[in-house]
Amino acid sequence: MLALIMAGGLGTRFWPKSRKKLPKHLLRVFGEKTLIQSTVERLSPVIKNDDIYVVSTREQITEIRKQLPMLPAANFIVEPKGKNTAPCIGLAALFMQQRASDEIMVVLPADHQIVDRDVFQKTLQAGAKVARDSDQIITIGIEPYYPATGYGYIQVHDEVRCIDGLTLSQIKTFAEKPDLETAKRFLHSGDFLWNSGIFIWRISKILAELEENLPQLYDGLMEIKSVLGTPKQEETIDRVYCQIRSVSIDYGVMESARNVHVMKGQFGWNDLGSWDEIYKLSTKDEQGNVLLGNHLTRNTKGCFVDAPGKCVALLGVENLIVVDTGDALLVCPRELSQDVKEIVELAKRKKLEQYT
Amino acid sequence: MLALIMAGGLGTRFWPKSRKKLPKHLLRVFGEKTLIQSTVERLSPVIKNDDIYVVSTREQITEIRKQLPMLPAANFIVEPKGKNTAPCIGLAALFMQQRASDEIMVVLPADHQIVDRDVFQKTLQAGAKVARDSDQIITIGIEPYYPATGYGYIQVHDEVRCIDGLTLSQIKTFAEKPDLETAKRFLHSGDFLWNSGIFIWRISKILAELEENLPQLYDGLMEIKSVLGTPKQEETIDRVYCQIRSVSIDYGVMESARNVHVMKGQFGWNDLGSWDEIYKLSTKDEQGNVLLGNHLTRNTKGCFVDAPGKCVALLGVENLIVVDTGDALLVCPRELSQDVKEIVELAKRKKLEQYT
Repeated sequence: MLALIMAGGLGTRFWPKSRKKLPKHLLRVFGEKTLIQSTVERLSPVIKNDDIYVVSTREQITEIRKQLPMLPAANFIVEPKGKNTAPCIGLAALFMQQRASDEIMVVLPADHQIVDRDVFQKTLQAGAKVARDSDQIITIGIEPYYPATGYGYIQVHDEVRCIDGLTLSQIKTFAEKPDLETAKRFLHSGDFLWNSGIFIWRISKILAELEENLPQLYDGLMEIKSVLGTPKQEETIDRVYCQIRSVSIDYGVMESARNVHVMKGQFGWNDLGSWDEIYKLSTKDEQGNVLLGNHLTRNTKGCFVDAPGKCVALLGVENLIVVDTGDALLVCPRELSQDVKEIVELAKRKKLEQYT
Repeated sequence: MLALIMAGGLGTRFWPKSRKKLPKHLLRVFGEKTLIQSTVERLSPVIKNDDIYVVSTREQITEIRKQLPMLPAANFIVEPKGKNTAPCIGLAALFMQQRASDEIMVVLPADHQIVDRDVFQKTLQAGAKVARDSDQIITIGIEPYYPATGYGYIQVHDEVRCIDGLTLSQIKTFAEKPDLETAKRFLHSGDFLWNSGIFIWRISKILAELEENLPQLYDGLMEIKSVLGTPKQEETIDRVYCQIRSVSIDYGVMESARNVHVMKGQFGWNDLGSWDEIYKLSTKDEQGNVLLGNHLTRNTKGCFVDAPGKCVALLGVENLIVVDTGDALLVCPRELSQDVKEIVELAKRKKLEQYT
């Protein structure tokens, strides 16, 4: 079994902590390890370090290598530019195929939180077994417990198989991030799961699906394959990446692929998608505030403060996110923390690139 | 005419900019000059620098001297500790009496904003004339234009005299800072003025009033007077200040003194009493925001940001004060900016003295 950690995201909803050169997955969000370090650490018991690949962009790769010295240098795959998940997965599949022919490939984001590592590892192993034996695409779905608007959803058929104590269902539809009303409907219907972005398949299976559903991308990948390991490799990847279009694996492959099944992951999952998610996962004081540091509050409830090395005073405010990085400061209501990425857009438009 | 600038305040409502060793009157709030420098500057055309005195505490006096090199060293009067305005005025009156016998004394705070210096100077001169000719106590009142809860009020009798184009009225009562309902009533009644804290009187007159209304303080002052200019001066001031009680000139003298009159000051006055006052006096952008620096806002209205050298992003917030000094940050609604002083109290209680 091989793993591909996708580490190309910018994590702009984590501004101002997350920056172009130090995005969310390279930050310490909880504890001593960065998110990508934790991701590798929880794979290690079931996948050897030699079999763990990381794909990212040129801007980030140096820092990623520094954070993951235990992985072989050849396992860091560089994309010339981010083109969403389908090209990135296809490119990685070529590298993996070259080394391991037709092994099982697990794809997973670099920046999620998983509480129960043991259950997580067992889920991967069970999923890999199904994917190997039946040549199916397996995605991991998470049972929703609140009407989240920040996640994609997977609707499942009633019929359920049980594999090693884990439930496996056929997929009816994929749904993009919903509005609140739709999310409530999904939650109450009982047949929707959150899309965790974790996939398991044979290398040959995903390449076959790319060939069928995204033929232009597949042609580009074959061009790359023909020069893999030769001096022409980098130049060819650059050229192909200029031509192919951005497309997600969910939209480009999953929604039309046959034989896609979802396995329910019950390991305590969070995509740490916004400051509000961090607030929700943190220990609160009696007023429901999360104060990281020596801060002062009066008549203040439900606030999150991350401002190391300074004294933040909150007076008469509620449900605010306050994040200070020395050079930049964010203040916004918790309920708008999904929109923090718009601040990064605004900074770019205002030519304040140093803050992005 | 002699002037006494009272510069002992801490300006805690201006936290985090205002600190124990650098309170509000020693800060640049508008423009290039600090508030105390502006105070001296607008007195200079009518009162010689030799005749301008400053009273403050030991903590502040070094910085005050540095900011006001144009004043004679002997004109800086040090109080061992702040005991409100009556002792401070009495002590200064002794120093002034020693030098100028029975001249006119103008008392004024160090931290106010005055727009029209010309009218201000004419008002002082007219007030001094009345105080000299009739041995009255003159206070300067300001016509209110909104129901301020941060100012004391003066109720006047209908009967009005006109001196050099300025109106002079007898005082009916002094009123402490009112609540909003009372402030509205004061505003609509039409016979209330804001108490600017500027007073004009003969030195002999204020000492006589102190003798009559605050005899314990007066006795202490006489003890000091007997050793003024001798080696015992400092020790005696220290001892007297340990014994006397804190009392304001308004409460201790004005409210019971006879022959107190108020002159209407029409020079554009603001006591800069809170961050909200600064907001109100500042130029706003189209969304009613005051942004000092390179900041980013989205769906944000009526906010005030003072955070030099950093990028503040406000997303979906309204009417907030955000002030950053590097080591400390304040976030509070504009309407609570009068309560910022409570943060300083809280910091003291929490042993975070370095931030006070």
